[in-house]
Amino acid sequence: MTVTTAVRERLADLYAAYASCLDDGRFGEWPEFFTEDAWYRVVPRENYDQGLPLSTLSLKGKAMLKDRIYGIESTIFHAPYYQRHILGPLQISAGADGVFDVRCNFLVVRTKRDMMAEIFSVGYYVDKVKVNETTTLFTTKICVFDNDLIPNSLIYPI
Amino acid sequence: MTVTTAVRERLADLYAAYASCLDDGRFGEWPEFFTEDAWYRVVPRENYDQGLPLSTLSLKGKAMLKDRIYGIESTIFHAPYYQRHILGPLQISAGADGVFDVRCNFLVVRTKRDMMAEIFSVGYYVDKVKVNETTTLFTTKICVFDNDLIPNSLIYPI
Amino acid sequence: MTVTTAVRERLADLYAAYASCLDDGRFGEWPEFFTEDAWYRVVPRENYDQGLPLSTLSLKGKAMLKDRIYGIESTIFHAPYYQRHILGPLQISAGADGVFDVRCNFLVVRTKRDMMAEIFSVGYYVDKVKVNETTTLFTTKICVFDNDLIPNSLIYPI
Repeated sequence: MTVTTAVRERLADLYAAYASCLDDGRFGEWPEFFTEDAWYRVVPRENYDQGLPLSTLSLKGKAMLKDRIYGIESTIFHAPYYQRHILGPLQISAGADGVFDVRCNFLVVRTKRDMMAEIFSVGYYVDKVKVNETTTLFTTKICVFDNDLIPNSLIYPI
Repeated sequence: MTVTTAVRERLADLYAAYASCLDDGRFGEWPEFFTEDAWYRVVPRENYDQGLPLSTLSLKGKAMLKDRIYGIESTIFHAPYYQRHILGPLQISAGADGVFDVRCNFLVVRTKRDMMAEIFSVGYYVDKVKVNETTTLFTTKICVFDNDLIPNSLIYPI
Repeated sequence: MTVTTAVRERLADLYAAYASCLDDGRFGEWPEFFTEDAWYRVVPRENYDQGLPLSTLSLKGKAMLKDRIYGIESTIFHAPYYQRHILGPLQISAGADGVFDVRCNFLVVRTKRDMMAEIFSVGYYVDKVKVNETTTLFTTKICVFDNDLIPNSLIYPI
C-alpha cells in the first residue's frame, strides 16, 4: 500500500475539515469524523513519551464521543471561548488494510470575549485513519500536548 | 468542475505567495493578488457569525486597495512592526465559472523592534478565487478574526 | 526543470520529517537532513534584510552540525524545554541541477516544565534542497527570525 497523491489529498481535506468543524463550534458533527469503535485520547507529552496510560481525556467508541459533546453543550458550566487550530504539514505512512498513520503538529489558539488571543494548547496528533472508497475516518486519534499547564480547563475537543 | 491536483497546487502557491508578500512588507504588490472589482474585508467573528455587515476594514475594487497601501506607506504615522503569517491547510470547494471557495485558518504573529513576538490576529479567510489559464486571483477575501481585542491598531493588511 | 507534484510531495515530506525530528528531540538525526558540505545559519531578519553577514549561528559542513549536537547534548548546561514547529505552506522554485529553492514560514513554540507555552521564535526558512533519486537533503538552510528578543538562549536547532 502506498501513499498516493489521491490519499494525500483525502487526508489533507480531512484535517482541514476537522479543524474547521471544531473552530466553528459545530460540535455535534465532531463524532462523525470517527469510526464506530474509534479511540480518542488527549495525553500529556510527558506521559506519552514514557508509555504511561494516564490520559487527560479518553473516549472509546462513538457513543462516548457523543456523550462528551452532550456534556459540553448541556451540562458543563463554563465561560465560552473560541478555538482556532493551526495545523502543520502531515507526515503520512501506510499501514495495512487501508489504514494510514498520520502525524501532524497542532497549535490551538484560544480567544475569550474581550481578551487577547493566547496559546491554549500545542502538540501533535498521532492518528490512524481508515481511507475507504467514500469515507475518511479516524480509528484512533491521540492528541499529545506539550504544555502540562494550560490556561484553564480543557472543555472542547482538540 | 472538480478540485484537481493542478488546482490545489495553484491555490497552495497563491496562499504561500500572498503570505510572503505581506510578511516581506512588499505592500505595493499586494493589490496584484486581486481582480479589478475584488472585495477585501476584515470582519470580527462576532459580526460575521451573525451576518452583520459592519467591517473593521472594507475595500471594494483594486483602486481602493491601492489607496489603502498609499495610506499605509505615506500618510499614517505608526510604529513599524513585522508580520508573520502562519497558514493552515486549505479547504477548497468548487463553485461556477472557475471560481473556487477557499477557507484557510491564519495566525498572524507581530514583532515590534526590541519586543517579544506576540499573537496579533487569529482567525480564518473566507475567500473566492478565480483560477484562469495564467492567473489565480482573489475576487473576494474576508478575513474573519476571533480576537476583538488586538494588541494595537491594524495597519498592514492581514 | 519544473516543480512537479512528485517534487512537491518529496519536499512536503522533508519539512514534516524535519519538524518532527527536532520536536521529538531526536537531535542525533538532525545532521542527516543535510548534505556533507551544507551550510546552516540562524540570522536575525534585520541583518538578513540588509545583507549583513552576522549570524546568531553559522555551521558549515555536516561535521560542524554534529559538533553542535554534541555540544547541546553533552557540554551545554541549560534547562530542558520542548519545541514545537508549526510550519506554513511551501513556496518552491526550481533552480539548476535538481536543487530547489524553498521558502517556508515557521513558528516555534517553546514549553518549559510547569510553565505556559510561549512563542519562542518566528520567521521563515530560506532553503536550498537537493532532490535526488533517493534522497532529499538541505544544501543550505537559513533560519531568518523576526524576533531579535527571544525569551532565553537558543539551544536547540530551529
